[in-house]
Amino acid sequence: MARKSKLKIIPLGGLNEIGKNMTVFEYGNDIVVLDCGMAFPDEEMPGIDFVIPDFSYLTKHKDKVRAVVLTHGHEDHIGALPFFLSEINVPVYGTNLTLGIVQNKLKEHNLLSKVKLNRISAGDVIKIGCFTFEAIRSNHSIADAVAYAIKTPVGTIVHTGDFKIDTTPIEGRMIDLARLGELGNEGVLALMSDSTNVERPGYTMSERTVGSSLDHVFESTKKRIIIATFASNVHRVQQIINSAHKFGRKVAVSGRSMVTILEVAMNLGYTKIPEGVLIDIDDIKKYRPSQLTIITTGSQGEPMSALYRMAFSDHRKVEITKDDLVVVSANPIPGNEKLVSNVVNELFKKGAEVIYDSSDMHVSGHACREELKIIMGLTRPKYFIPVHGEYRHLKLHADLGKLMEIDKKNVIILDIGKVLEFGANDAKVTGTVPSGRVLVDGLGVGDVGNIVLRDRRHLAQDGLIVVVVTIASDNYSVVSGPAVISRGFVYVRESETLIEEIEEIASQCIETCIDNRVHDWSTIKTNMKNKISDHIYHQTKRKPMILPVIMEV
Amino acid sequence: MARKSKLKIIPLGGLNEIGKNMTVFEYGNDIVVLDCGMAFPDEEMPGIDFVIPDFSYLTKHKDKVRAVVLTHGHEDHIGALPFFLSEINVPVYGTNLTLGIVQNKLKEHNLLSKVKLNRISAGDVIKIGCFTFEAIRSNHSIADAVAYAIKTPVGTIVHTGDFKIDTTPIEGRMIDLARLGELGNEGVLALMSDSTNVERPGYTMSERTVGSSLDHVFESTKKRIIIATFASNVHRVQQIINSAHKFGRKVAVSGRSMVTILEVAMNLGYTKIPEGVLIDIDDIKKYRPSQLTIITTGSQGEPMSALYRMAFSDHRKVEITKDDLVVVSANPIPGNEKLVSNVVNELFKKGAEVIYDSSDMHVSGHACREELKIIMGLTRPKYFIPVHGEYRHLKLHADLGKLMEIDKKNVIILDIGKVLEFGANDAKVTGTVPSGRVLVDGLGVGDVGNIVLRDRRHLAQDGLIVVVVTIASDNYSVVSGPAVISRGFVYVRESETLIEEIEEIASQCIETCIDNRVHDWSTIKTNMKNKISDHIYHQTKRKPMILPVIMEV
Repeated sequence: MARKSKLKIIPLGGLNEIGKNMTVFEYGNDIVVLDCGMAFPDEEMPGIDFVIPDFSYLTKHKDKVRAVVLTHGHEDHIGALPFFLSEINVPVYGTNLTLGIVQNKLKEHNLLSKVKLNRISAGDVIKIGCFTFEAIRSNHSIADAVAYAIKTPVGTIVHTGDFKIDTTPIEGRMIDLARLGELGNEGVLALMSDSTNVERPGYTMSERTVGSSLDHVFESTKKRIIIATFASNVHRVQQIINSAHKFGRKVAVSGRSMVTILEVAMNLGYTKIPEGVLIDIDDIKKYRPSQLTIITTGSQGEPMSALYRMAFSDHRKVEITKDDLVVVSANPIPGNEKLVSNVVNELFKKGAEVIYDSSDMHVSGHACREELKIIMGLTRPKYFIPVHGEYRHLKLHADLGKLMEIDKKNVIILDIGKVLEFGANDAKVTGTVPSGRVLVDGLGVGDVGNIVLRDRRHLAQDGLIVVVVTIASDNYSVVSGPAVISRGFVYVRESETLIEEIEEIASQCIETCIDNRVHDWSTIKTNMKNKISDHIYHQTKRKPMILPVIMEV
Repeated sequence: MARKSKLKIIPLGGLNEIGKNMTVFEYGNDIVVLDCGMAFPDEEMPGIDFVIPDFSYLTKHKDKVRAVVLTHGHEDHIGALPFFLSEINVPVYGTNLTLGIVQNKLKEHNLLSKVKLNRISAGDVIKIGCFTFEAIRSNHSIADAVAYAIKTPVGTIVHTGDFKIDTTPIEGRMIDLARLGELGNEGVLALMSDSTNVERPGYTMSERTVGSSLDHVFESTKKRIIIATFASNVHRVQQIINSAHKFGRKVAVSGRSMVTILEVAMNLGYTKIPEGVLIDIDDIKKYRPSQLTIITTGSQGEPMSALYRMAFSDHRKVEITKDDLVVVSANPIPGNEKLVSNVVNELFKKGAEVIYDSSDMHVSGHACREELKIIMGLTRPKYFIPVHGEYRHLKLHADLGKLMEIDKKNVIILDIGKVLEFGANDAKVTGTVPSGRVLVDGLGVGDVGNIVLRDRRHLAQDGLIVVVVTIASDNYSVVSGPAVISRGFVYVRESETLIEEIEEIASQCIETCIDNRVHDWSTIKTNMKNKISDHIYHQTKRKPMILPVIMEV
């Protein structure tokens, strides 16, 4: 096979959507995958646990896939790894904390011993097939995030991953702007940059500002302080621990992911806890409120999370009282506003003081418009491809690119599944590959599709009516039934007449069909369904799912 | 019966929740109801159209109910009227625009000729039973809103309704602070005040500020301008019309509620449209983009709304192109953020310019903290009862009351159904009456209860499996089946083995039961249900609803 002279960039997730970030870099016989994330289901996907990218294109070209390279350890960048690696077992590259979190995840899926994990640090340059990946120090709401400069045979691609410019980060250093500038001087073919916060003007505040707000809270109360934040935000957790220590409080931890990630972060040295500060959650009763801090999950109001259980008196170790000050150190992710409100209401009802929705207690992990412009100004790419965002983010970021004097025709809004081909002097979309969402429900991966979802939504809207009738196969007489069972429609006691009417309609349908010598069950069933549906709609203005069942004896 | 000497205030809606505002004032043989609103269902109520208050307490004491008095014409204050009036037909009092909207609503329910509507104006004092209701001019995001001073035998109650202090309203005048101050001087027993915006510091901006922002938009574009806002915000609509006229544009209107309410507002003189400005939506093709403005519903991204249909190319009259500038002149109501985002994404995809999420293009209709304090400062009530809000709003508003030097023990956080009794010198909660939510689904009012909702949620989560078997009643032998039908579980083609296993388990269950001389269908069904459920959970980690049906022949 002749060597192809084009670089293909194929996003499989993270464009026109939030989450499940995954990008394919392909040249000749080499494919490298950048990130492998999951997404959370929306309200149109009832019962779904989470969503992973459709990576069937990669399964098909399995033999070409050389590695997965990771930018950082958030679920929307690593969450689909177990599913990917059990089909395509290739080496994984990532920084220390990222791989620490990945390790835990692979352990849960019994994959740890089977996968080769390659630990890298910011500044490292690794050769994978015809590509060279250079990890560039970055800042984000999780430690150890990196961007990549990807040297390809046709030029250098810079992919920011998720990032912000934090001039005073808690640990580590500021994003390596100097190196991005050098790359700009050397020549960048294309920049792929994080669009999440493009709607926000100015700059994102430094993580460090949260620390002084925390100190202020700790200084001004004698109550027990309970702080909910993202488990993976190890810098935030570190700052809470620092404040607690400064004001002589012990720290206990609640919530599975908080405990797990804290352990990883401590083992790897990302979180440092002074001797004697950390106590077991079982020991909180030994201390007065003014001596205690509890760090917990549940900042998004997630049902089953530790804070949710505390609020609804369902937590076995922590009871909320008027001696509690609860701090929600996070913003609600769009769609979670009501969940968070519910929890806050309950906490107030228990008498707790609650600090929520406060810009002092949280900063974003993503770059705002001025930061995005700095990255473009430093890298001065020939092509610009906004990534990570819904369409409006990509569009606004594309407009920002044009403002930064990137040639209008070189600003490319891509979509998942699109194949963008780079030659030495041109870039164009040349085709599409399968892409989309694969739904994970319990142990099932991909077995819930659009038909099943449509049925679930239908069932949720107006419930279900099952009509069962037993018919003799010799003379087509009704032997038993019709019996009508409903669920989620109306409470039966209140609708006896309607149920009787449905039985009557079903009987008539069968009679008419038999009289007309229609002996085909599926026609009879369709008939029953339509007649019953019409009647119910007329009587109730509702459209439950009608499920006719004919048993032959 | 001896005349009771206590005033009872009983909220039936609007406390610990947003919406379905309704308050009962009762003294001796007189009951007057203030507002009669509906609420929108949340995600825990699939298939429900809307929610009204449980007013069975009033049905029970029908003969005492003298009237419904309305503060303004928003759905959360008038939406339950048709349901209430068809059970308890009493006179309704309200201002001009409020009753105009009510009239439309009653017409739809064929109630208009049966109900006595009494038009009042701000400043009017009306006697109803032993009560005197004085309407006080107010400001809100709908015209003609009033607060009430209610003179009762034990003292004066001030109820603000929904309000803000708008010093430069579009039409009418500033809220009558002078009268509130006079009432304070005369002595106010209790203040019941709107808590919606208590989380926001400072003051809400005047509606007029939106006007200059609109002018700025109209001045700076040659595109067609499409503006989505709340139909009932007649002042906003007036300002859009003013800007359009000023810049020589025609105005067309889209969306059922926009058309309906505009008609009411024009007929009553609340909206004034210069000759020749309003055109039919069918005529928009006669004009260039720069000559057009379209005012539309859909500012909350509601599926089926006009803006939604435009965005998703489903609107018969309006096609979105790059020659459109769309302005969303509203904030997303909590819970609607994703709906609005979806619409914005689609508009961008069609090439339109979109202004959304802009504080210039919308102001709230509710008072912020400083305004709330002014009302307390003017009325100087003995008792303070925060209303209209979830618990956190009521709590924060109660705290604000204490700050304003209302006696701590006289600040009362109520809940719906609580009976607050006022004597001349005391106030206490003395009992509860039935209260809560009545769900409206299609034509059914109250026939969907918790069991039906629970079933709907269950069906939505993991779908349904129906197992039907026909059994001979004489010898208990299986005559036909078991047949397994699933919906919303997995797509059948992909789960043939599992379906076969379920059939097998069902057969075994029946056999075992018959062998053990268990001849009671309900025991057999419970058995089948448990065994099948366990097996499915083990195989899939899902819990579909299992519906066993036994047909006897």
